[in-house]
Amino acid sequence: MENAQPPRFAEGSLAHALRDRFDRGQRPLLVGVAGDSGSGKTTYTEGIEWLLGADLVSQISLDGYHKEDRATRRQSGASPLDPNANHLAQAAADLAQLQQGIAVDIPRYDHRQGQFLPPRRHTPTPVILIEGLHTLYPEFQSLLDFRIFVDSDVRVKREWKFTRDTQERGYADTEAESQIASRADEFEKWLADQQYAADVVVRIHPSTLGTLALDGVEDDCNDTCYHIEVIVTPNQLSQGSLYFPVDLSTMTRQEALPFMLAMIPSRFQGHGVNVLHVDGHMPLAALDTLENEIRQFIGKPAAPATTTASQALPPTIRFAQMLVAWPFLGHLATPTNAV
Amino acid sequence: MENAQPPRFAEGSLAHALRDRFDRGQRPLLVGVAGDSGSGKTTYTEGIEWLLGADLVSQISLDGYHKEDRATRRQSGASPLDPNANHLAQAAADLAQLQQGIAVDIPRYDHRQGQFLPPRRHTPTPVILIEGLHTLYPEFQSLLDFRIFVDSDVRVKREWKFTRDTQERGYADTEAESQIASRADEFEKWLADQQYAADVVVRIHPSTLGTLALDGVEDDCNDTCYHIEVIVTPNQLSQGSLYFPVDLSTMTRQEALPFMLAMIPSRFQGHGVNVLHVDGHMPLAALDTLENEIRQFIGKPAAPATTTASQALPPTIRFAQMLVAWPFLGHLATPTNAV
Repeated sequence: MENAQPPRFAEGSLAHALRDRFDRGQRPLLVGVAGDSGSGKTTYTEGIEWLLGADLVSQISLDGYHKEDRATRRQSGASPLDPNANHLAQAAADLAQLQQGIAVDIPRYDHRQGQFLPPRRHTPTPVILIEGLHTLYPEFQSLLDFRIFVDSDVRVKREWKFTRDTQERGYADTEAESQIASRADEFEKWLADQQYAADVVVRIHPSTLGTLALDGVEDDCNDTCYHIEVIVTPNQLSQGSLYFPVDLSTMTRQEALPFMLAMIPSRFQGHGVNVLHVDGHMPLAALDTLENEIRQFIGKPAAPATTTASQALPPTIRFAQMLVAWPFLGHLATPTNAV
Repeated sequence: MENAQPPRFAEGSLAHALRDRFDRGQRPLLVGVAGDSGSGKTTYTEGIEWLLGADLVSQISLDGYHKEDRATRRQSGASPLDPNANHLAQAAADLAQLQQGIAVDIPRYDHRQGQFLPPRRHTPTPVILIEGLHTLYPEFQSLLDFRIFVDSDVRVKREWKFTRDTQERGYADTEAESQIASRADEFEKWLADQQYAADVVVRIHPSTLGTLALDGVEDDCNDTCYHIEVIVTPNQLSQGSLYFPVDLSTMTRQEALPFMLAMIPSRFQGHGVNVLHVDGHMPLAALDTLENEIRQFIGKPAAPATTTASQALPPTIRFAQMLVAWPFLGHLATPTNAV
């Protein structure tokens, strides 16, 4: 059937080049996304998959390489954040196989039950997104084409993780609470330093718009707003412009929505980075414009029919997805790097 | 000569309507701009004149209504910030004449020499901008169609005023210094409360971009950057959109320039306002786009030949000029208000 054909990409487009080089036997591109449990890693892998499409992208979680399941950990007292509680060498060996274009059986861990599942055969795709607690550890550095670190503020992580762990992963309230507390130290000890190996770091904080208000902010949107920092190590890519249209005419309207947008070139661990700050309500029309610009850069102007998951996210988070995807796409589009 | 004709404005445009209603004998529109000496009031009157053109706009300073010249003040110890040291009733009477469309002799004060000049006959134009220390005092309220208050941070005011007073107004360094110190209190006592009568308040602070940096801001642009707050009382005008295009692609470039833009609906003296925050380097291309959009709203798409004064300003200040002009233009365009 005509409808069953894989989508065709415009000649010369990034999507076409990704498909074409892969079909000609070039190795898949591996993207590592590291961060704490509950930091929102899958938000960013899903953002990239949503943009590039499931025909170009597949996802792997390294959680299947935990050495112990939940019941065993409760007895041993080991933490999955400890790299030694994970089969990292095996994970690296498996990723190396995938990078050679060879299908691999990837172990799986079911967070709902806290148990391992039978491994699933993973067939390489042009782009493979690998998320996990230790994805930017030295074991994986030489395998990765692009590195993303997600660092949610402890207050945001607490809220997200508590909701997910109690509602989806079957933890008792008190167990989730005490785990969150003890894991803050473990995060600093075992996970935080990975951010210094990342091409892009995303940090999510509670909204700080109140600091820009006068007597008080009219709508502090605490339920749906986050202050998002995206830290990008600049390169000399010429990726074209990416215009986000801010409608200033809302200044005279009573229904104006609060937002903040900033770009701050900064020092970070001794080298120069650009820090994007985003906070508040992103206007949906402007977000659509931005997403369409990125799709045009990719060469997939038509949005897929099933956009509900991404569209349902808070607009600031959708915006952050785009801010993380953009430097990655620029990396893909640079001939010396990848495509 | 053909060239000497006044410019023609597109039928139905705001500029055409302003010209037309005035030529049909309607009264001129009076705009008050109040603020301390050295706060940058003329920046905003010049911004509006630059947008609407000298054929529609004229300017008046209320400084000619000071009761004493500089030499007399040095003996009397009076401050020009004291409303009683100014002929405010006479000023109001003169403005009332102008509002009737009658030409008036306006007294003048020469800040360079600190002396009065012979009055100059002021012939009404469709829009008359009136700047002064007390322009939003109750004496003038019923005469004004729109009210702007300029409130520069004492650190910015100090820098601007010191430079101007010593370089252009012939004050000795020590005299300028001591005047700046004593006038901070006088500002609070006699001038600051006028902001609560304003439709738009502009506040200028030193740049605060450093608070958004990581280890340190790469380029804190202290010489040319200001943090500008524009406080707008919203109305229900439908003024159309005013898009400011932010190019997010600079996130991957080493030459990215720092900037911040925010819109914060806030409480201010018990009523709802919108607060725009602007800081850092405004990209000139985006600024040109914004200015062209505003010109199109006015119906004067072609920039005048002599744009050097405004173009030479720091881009953040040019941006602030546009942010102040926009709600004023929306007011003009509302049939029930004016045109």
